[in-house]
Amino acid sequence: MMVSDIVRELKKAQSIGVITHINPDGDAVGSVLAIALALKKLKKSAVVIKNDIIPDKYKFLPGQELITCIDDITAALDILIVLDCGDADRLGNGICLLEKAKTVINIDHHISNTMFGNLNLVDTNAAATAEIVYQVIKLTGARLDMDIATCLYTAIVADTGCFRYDNTTQVTHTICGELISLGVKSNRIITRLFHERTLPQLKILGMAVNSLKIFHGGKTAVMMVTKDMMEDSGAAQGDLENVIDFGRDVSGVEIAVLMKEVEDNSVRIGFRAKDDVDVSSIARGFGGGGHKKASGCTLKGSLSEALEMVLGEIDKIFGVRQ
Amino acid sequence: MMVSDIVRELKKAQSIGVITHINPDGDAVGSVLAIALALKKLKKSAVVIKNDIIPDKYKFLPGQELITCIDDITAALDILIVLDCGDADRLGNGICLLEKAKTVINIDHHISNTMFGNLNLVDTNAAATAEIVYQVIKLTGARLDMDIATCLYTAIVADTGCFRYDNTTQVTHTICGELISLGVKSNRIITRLFHERTLPQLKILGMAVNSLKIFHGGKTAVMMVTKDMMEDSGAAQGDLENVIDFGRDVSGVEIAVLMKEVEDNSVRIGFRAKDDVDVSSIARGFGGGGHKKASGCTLKGSLSEALEMVLGEIDKIFGVRQ
Repeated sequence: MMVSDIVRELKKAQSIGVITHINPDGDAVGSVLAIALALKKLKKSAVVIKNDIIPDKYKFLPGQELITCIDDITAALDILIVLDCGDADRLGNGICLLEKAKTVINIDHHISNTMFGNLNLVDTNAAATAEIVYQVIKLTGARLDMDIATCLYTAIVADTGCFRYDNTTQVTHTICGELISLGVKSNRIITRLFHERTLPQLKILGMAVNSLKIFHGGKTAVMMVTKDMMEDSGAAQGDLENVIDFGRDVSGVEIAVLMKEVEDNSVRIGFRAKDDVDVSSIARGFGGGGHKKASGCTLKGSLSEALEMVLGEIDKIFGVRQ
Repeated sequence: MMVSDIVRELKKAQSIGVITHINPDGDAVGSVLAIALALKKLKKSAVVIKNDIIPDKYKFLPGQELITCIDDITAALDILIVLDCGDADRLGNGICLLEKAKTVINIDHHISNTMFGNLNLVDTNAAATAEIVYQVIKLTGARLDMDIATCLYTAIVADTGCFRYDNTTQVTHTICGELISLGVKSNRIITRLFHERTLPQLKILGMAVNSLKIFHGGKTAVMMVTKDMMEDSGAAQGDLENVIDFGRDVSGVEIAVLMKEVEDNSVRIGFRAKDDVDVSSIARGFGGGGHKKASGCTLKGSLSEALEMVLGEIDKIFGVRQ
């Protein structure tokens, strides 16, 4: 399917709902708000349909007034646009809306997309779904104002780790260059997405970093987070996100491990690998799973018992522990 | 002066030296290596003249074999290209070379540039000197290979804080998009410049973060680094770079303070402000200096004495301490 086919359908329609996957990330939230704002400019009756909680860090995005609940969609929709969603099952409660729409348009960049729409525009070369949404909006002729540009820019920097990940292409930079020229406050957006932390987030980061121990001559870094640390810092589960990266990013470290004491005498363990090491096999060996460079598992026992088990497995990769 | 004027001079010349300011940053190092590599492709006798230590983090850049010492420049140069250097005094020992060159070409993006060259190409709209160097290289017709592209990309991401600072423009993104299309390993470069830490750097970061205290209802964050912490972590002075940002980036914080115990019963203090607060006046009040959003001073006394003095000044901004 081409961008022009999608635009032709949109132009014919009047009532359009936009939805994304549950547990939405920056690309998901930014993309749905951008296209809904653009459709409003084209005098369409457009709403963003909420099927999950939107993380606080994306509440600054324009277009929040277009968000509506699933239950409020009573009449049939001319079009349901599903964005950044590889599989209809990831719509959560929103899956019922597939029946309620005359046409389902599926726009995505995931290689695993199941092509569940009536029209499917899947470009796996796009760094973010927002890159495809940008092309669609451009072709509709809707004016790219600063609100739409802010949503698109946020979506793209979120999905590329601020132009860091290998999905970043020349197209990514060309689009973001244009968005910046429209006045997007890129400094504030990047700061908010990648640098700002709440006090509990910073406290648990400091405690985790202070717990760091090095093994295998500097190749393994282990951080341990106790229940007491979580309580003392006031941190919630999500506040540990990205803490493990500080271990991985130490010069010379090849495997970073973050062990978190949880209820029922269990330890939740995350692994991160740099370059050539594969940590998915370690996690799988303990009944967990994940990717080559990021995996996880849960072990029964105390932190020190779990540490011994994990180090025993990493010994097999790096040899005798130093 | 136009880019074409510079290129015409370069084409006529044979022996060309390239130099930058002392205490070189990423834009300085990347720019000199990029232009020297390009001049070699044009069959010029080109060298990068070393007037200061090049930080380890830029040792991965291609073209290191073109670096030579000032003392090795015995014959007169047809051209000395001075890059990213606002003032001839910032050349350090290299200032003597201004006399040894038939023509001095000054290429820079600082608004304060004193136009000390015979030819001056100063573009204050450029986010990095490397953006201007890119234009020069393109016009010479030298092939932009991956080595040159790597130097230019590194220089630009260094001077824009990875596209974060407000100097980033559409041109910045357009250039970096092209450099990426040439195969630049952007992920590795960004990781190396902004995320990688040595073990002592991570340890002192963890200790500093753990020392963080909040005042004025969350508007002031203070971190304190003792001599013992420096010793225990194995950190050197430069390893504290950017640690204060972790205080500034806490949600709600408007002033971040980092206090470091130094010799002679003194405390070295850094201030960072978010948004609208001006910390240069605080530092000046204590005999220091700096900018509105980043300043510093040194106080006599213990850490706790210095803390009281500093908080007393901040009380005047935020009112009664909470």
